[in-house]
Amino acid sequence: MMNMTITMNTTPADRLARLMAATRVAVVGASDDPAKLTGRPIAYMLKRGFKGQILPVNPSRSQVQGLKSYPSLAAIDGPVDLAIIGTAPAQVEPVVEEGIRCGIASFVVLSSGFAEHDAEGARLQTRLGALAQQHGIALVGPNCLGVINAHSGLIASFTTAMEGNALVPGGFGFVTQSGALGAYWLDLVLQSGLGVSRWITTGNECDIDIAAGLSMLVHDPDTRVIGAYVEDVKHGTAFRDALRDAARAGKPVFLIKAGRSAAGAAAAASHTGAIAGEDRIYQACFDQYGAVRVSSITELIDAAKLVLFDALPAAGQAGILSVSGGAGVLLADAIESAGLSLPRLTPDTAQELARCLPKYSKPQNPIDLTANVLSDPTMFRRTLAVVSSAPELDCAILFIGLMHSIADDLARAILSAREASGRPFVVVWIGAPPNVVTRLGAARIPVYGDIPQAVAALANVMRSAKARPMAREIPNAPPPAGPHPEACQLTEWRSKARLAGLGGLAIPAGVLVISPEEVAAALADIPGPYAAKLQSPQMLHKSDHGAVVLGLADVASATAATATLLEQGATAGVSCEGVLIEQMVPFDFELVAGLRRDPVFGAVLMVGRGGVEVELAPDVVMGFLPLGDDAIEAMLRGLRCARLFDGFRGRASVDLRAVARALAELCERFLSESRLEEIEINPLVLRGASAVALDALVKEAP
Amino acid sequence: MMNMTITMNTTPADRLARLMAATRVAVVGASDDPAKLTGRPIAYMLKRGFKGQILPVNPSRSQVQGLKSYPSLAAIDGPVDLAIIGTAPAQVEPVVEEGIRCGIASFVVLSSGFAEHDAEGARLQTRLGALAQQHGIALVGPNCLGVINAHSGLIASFTTAMEGNALVPGGFGFVTQSGALGAYWLDLVLQSGLGVSRWITTGNECDIDIAAGLSMLVHDPDTRVIGAYVEDVKHGTAFRDALRDAARAGKPVFLIKAGRSAAGAAAAASHTGAIAGEDRIYQACFDQYGAVRVSSITELIDAAKLVLFDALPAAGQAGILSVSGGAGVLLADAIESAGLSLPRLTPDTAQELARCLPKYSKPQNPIDLTANVLSDPTMFRRTLAVVSSAPELDCAILFIGLMHSIADDLARAILSAREASGRPFVVVWIGAPPNVVTRLGAARIPVYGDIPQAVAALANVMRSAKARPMAREIPNAPPPAGPHPEACQLTEWRSKARLAGLGGLAIPAGVLVISPEEVAAALADIPGPYAAKLQSPQMLHKSDHGAVVLGLADVASATAATATLLEQGATAGVSCEGVLIEQMVPFDFELVAGLRRDPVFGAVLMVGRGGVEVELAPDVVMGFLPLGDDAIEAMLRGLRCARLFDGFRGRASVDLRAVARALAELCERFLSESRLEEIEINPLVLRGASAVALDALVKEAP
Repeated sequence: MMNMTITMNTTPADRLARLMAATRVAVVGASDDPAKLTGRPIAYMLKRGFKGQILPVNPSRSQVQGLKSYPSLAAIDGPVDLAIIGTAPAQVEPVVEEGIRCGIASFVVLSSGFAEHDAEGARLQTRLGALAQQHGIALVGPNCLGVINAHSGLIASFTTAMEGNALVPGGFGFVTQSGALGAYWLDLVLQSGLGVSRWITTGNECDIDIAAGLSMLVHDPDTRVIGAYVEDVKHGTAFRDALRDAARAGKPVFLIKAGRSAAGAAAAASHTGAIAGEDRIYQACFDQYGAVRVSSITELIDAAKLVLFDALPAAGQAGILSVSGGAGVLLADAIESAGLSLPRLTPDTAQELARCLPKYSKPQNPIDLTANVLSDPTMFRRTLAVVSSAPELDCAILFIGLMHSIADDLARAILSAREASGRPFVVVWIGAPPNVVTRLGAARIPVYGDIPQAVAALANVMRSAKARPMAREIPNAPPPAGPHPEACQLTEWRSKARLAGLGGLAIPAGVLVISPEEVAAALADIPGPYAAKLQSPQMLHKSDHGAVVLGLADVASATAATATLLEQGATAGVSCEGVLIEQMVPFDFELVAGLRRDPVFGAVLMVGRGGVEVELAPDVVMGFLPLGDDAIEAMLRGLRCARLFDGFRGRASVDLRAVARALAELCERFLSESRLEEIEINPLVLRGASAVALDALVKEAP
Repeated sequence: MMNMTITMNTTPADRLARLMAATRVAVVGASDDPAKLTGRPIAYMLKRGFKGQILPVNPSRSQVQGLKSYPSLAAIDGPVDLAIIGTAPAQVEPVVEEGIRCGIASFVVLSSGFAEHDAEGARLQTRLGALAQQHGIALVGPNCLGVINAHSGLIASFTTAMEGNALVPGGFGFVTQSGALGAYWLDLVLQSGLGVSRWITTGNECDIDIAAGLSMLVHDPDTRVIGAYVEDVKHGTAFRDALRDAARAGKPVFLIKAGRSAAGAAAAASHTGAIAGEDRIYQACFDQYGAVRVSSITELIDAAKLVLFDALPAAGQAGILSVSGGAGVLLADAIESAGLSLPRLTPDTAQELARCLPKYSKPQNPIDLTANVLSDPTMFRRTLAVVSSAPELDCAILFIGLMHSIADDLARAILSAREASGRPFVVVWIGAPPNVVTRLGAARIPVYGDIPQAVAALANVMRSAKARPMAREIPNAPPPAGPHPEACQLTEWRSKARLAGLGGLAIPAGVLVISPEEVAAALADIPGPYAAKLQSPQMLHKSDHGAVVLGLADVASATAATATLLEQGATAGVSCEGVLIEQMVPFDFELVAGLRRDPVFGAVLMVGRGGVEVELAPDVVMGFLPLGDDAIEAMLRGLRCARLFDGFRGRASVDLRAVARALAELCERFLSESRLEEIEINPLVLRGASAVALDALVKEAP
């Protein structure tokens, strides 16, 4: 076998794409037993019609499952695109090294016994990762369930989900950090008749990680919808860029993220051998980048089905047809929460409907077909025709229950109406006969078993569509900076001095005094009333220590307060930088704002409603930097309390544009000054166009 | 046939119970065709083994479906317990009259063409209702799908759900205002193997209504869990008492209420021919009485299954076992939101588990069984034994996916562990083989298809259990009073005078003046600062008209403000009762409180967080009167902002007990003085033990 040159400087996603395209596939440690771990990939590919060539490697056999077996990778004639490795863990490294020498650029390591197992396994795994880096190969795993390309029939996996299911090619791609959840996805998707594009289980991620998998799916021409199961992202910026690219490519991403609760996060940390990270950082990333978080594999598939079937209503103007008045009401109840509208029917449509319906059913949306649907076989068809051509509607949602005796008629009517109108149809059918579900599915009409499933799918798809335009515009994520282990928290007056230098936000007029005697002179140019605050690095949260005096009307009371505070500091025995005396600032709104550097995802702005709400019912949004004026204004508008900004109920309004611009300026400086570790402003008070940092703490490396 | 005496003075629920117990059942208009509407009840009862006697009435046939047919009800020998009527609508009344003459006490009218159809039908229906009232009979319908008693095999229904399903007797009862949704429930429950007790579709409710159906199920010894579909309650107090009785009987009520959204409410109004009522009044009723609202038939059945299988964890100390680490994390994430805990394992349990699990799986809760479960057949069984005897746990939640090759082994292990421990098991099994679901179900182990379904069921059942103790204590609902068409809104000062007379709440010190000259003398005993408010019946919402001046420091400014306000009233041309000048009241908390009389459910107290939140993100609870101190204190504690009352973050706390007592006093007076139509207090301000009505509007009949 010749030694090939391996292309360097490609992205992990490119290298994974090359892996997925493999046509000559070696299986190292190939078993003749189709039920064994290293027998299954061969058995599955033989059974499911892999379009390439399978090259078993097993030195002790001349044939494996009827195929010629080779004693080693080196012994194979001609190039090998991919080596699937299922040997004992100790043999994996030599096999990969041999493969690299033979010019093989792609590896899937199914073997377990690495970082998930013990320290020796972790060291082995680190060396595998280094090999991959050094030689520009793609290595999936170790300790993974492998990968599948449903379009070529490549099954580099031993998942039992391939035992009973045909491998239907299609547009649904999935990448997962849990092999088992990947298997459930695969089984359910194949059983539902939805086609698969690519399937990647990333295992221990010594090289190819979840971000690479996502990015590969984004650029894969066969993939239209992306699903993912995420526990722990290692390369936050690559992950962010991949989600942004998905938005640009118009590919919805539906994902499950484990570790939402404290108990879940602890369990995830133990399961993946990594810390699951702060859930709200992940949620912020999903929200900003338009990835829609779902809570189960079934919810994920339900949503994807709408997209794959092109059953997404463009403007969401739904007409509901129900064989039960009650179910029509329940659908109407739920549909608006999914982001769809239920338009009032035009007089023309109502008149046409009146001709179809029994006279006691009012021609309105939702349309109650009544039990007459059983006795009048043409009514359903005629009503459907009216609804699917009404100009005020752009999709039809049908509710059917039981109706087994006329199920075939109903299905035929739906199929022909869908074909005639070209409009998306969504069917909720309680107790639908399975053959009807299959028939409608083949015509790309999604059928759901009950109302909540259909509504959740619609809501998830609408949410994805709504978030995409913003996500598309996000620039590349800058690499995360820090953390600086030597960074330390500055006292308020130092923090404010630093903040003033950064620009953007205003700081109250104030002075630092170190004795009561200075106060009168220092306040000569600053009119009252004043606030006085003791400045000590050991009392950063001053209010908790009673080290703040507010509402000091004049210089005399400010002087007295200064004396009291300094005495208090001396009594407590804390080192004391002085007392900060500031002019009190009147304001209309109270926000909190913060900037920090997440070690995985990078710099992030947090802004929320201030005051008691911060801890009572947090109303907070987060966004990763860089963030422009528009993005920050959109964040502020995304707060639950946003109505207050517009002068709610006769109160003062605020110039949100100006506030957003001030925050954007601060963000820009935070991004460029990597020594700045954290900025916390609480409260950030607003009046008109002014945004003033009433209190602030800056953490900075020297 | 003899003319029987009909027992009067029974409740509708008693009469319905008598109907359900019928053993000699006439079918009027009986068809020989088992597929026809009036043929089906007979065909179904014959097929499903009705334990009583079927008596077809059809003058034109001597036999119907092999049974002797009678020309009329009167021609039947011996007593008849129930007449099922499926004739043309015009014949229904004469048939019921004939039946009453023959001493028949129970009727199910399947025929349609009544109030849902036209005005003539509505008149007919009113006469049927009057007949029922007058003679103390039970009449279900008209325009209904009928009723079923699964224990006797009585099928007084033409629902197609009885076509393919055996009638399994059991403990699950259902009452519904939609026939179709009733049919879906019946189909799904029978297919799932859960047994049915009673099933009632109420149709147009000329006599037996949803409240009577509920009450009958509460007192029915065969019923353990109650399901309901509600669109519109006619007798709110009977409905409330029925829910309370359910709580006392320890029977959980899970219900679907249509009309949550504006569109849904409009559709419901059209469908049932009645106004669906304000959704939040219904929600308040469900919350207070411990009925758990669900959003679909499947969610309702999922929850009921837990109760019917006695799979409810007593203290909710769950141990999670998962064959997938990822799924274990997802379950852990969800389980706490369902009101269960995930206890940390004791060292003993952890040590025992460590002996079962592979060494790389940490013995913690959730327990990750890993893929070893496939290769080590005894591991699952051993781990299950540890979990189901661990003293820190009281239930086990299992996650399994696929595993078809060892599904029977797993099922056997679960069955024997459940039997050995007697503890509740809940199984989530993605892609479970149907025969395994059936086997586990037969041993009363519930199996759910994915995590969210199981978690929703657990959450609904936990919620029901938590609400029951409070609901049990509620006294009988007093009949609703009013509305008084001639009731009118009093101005603020008149409202406050009325309120002062009722007791409970305090009123700010204040005077009404009709000219600026009076002000100085009137305020002689009232220290400032003051608020001045114009009193005009045409300006009841004074702030919107700028007719309020606050923060008047002294008598002079109060005098000036009075002049300005009076001039403003004169300019606007409104009739003016004067200016109310009050002492400003300092406070720590701002509530809103209101009392009104709902025409269906009766007098209701609303109390919520005041200020801008009222319209921004309403934080409000409602409770129906009578309400004692405890109940009102619990309501206040149920507000999202309740933490504020206890002195959150160094702020002042409030004597909630005193506030509750004051409100309870007001509620008592409101209940006894039926002329009072409505009281609205906004804000009701609190400081310490005082509760002061800063502004109030009373609506009262003269």
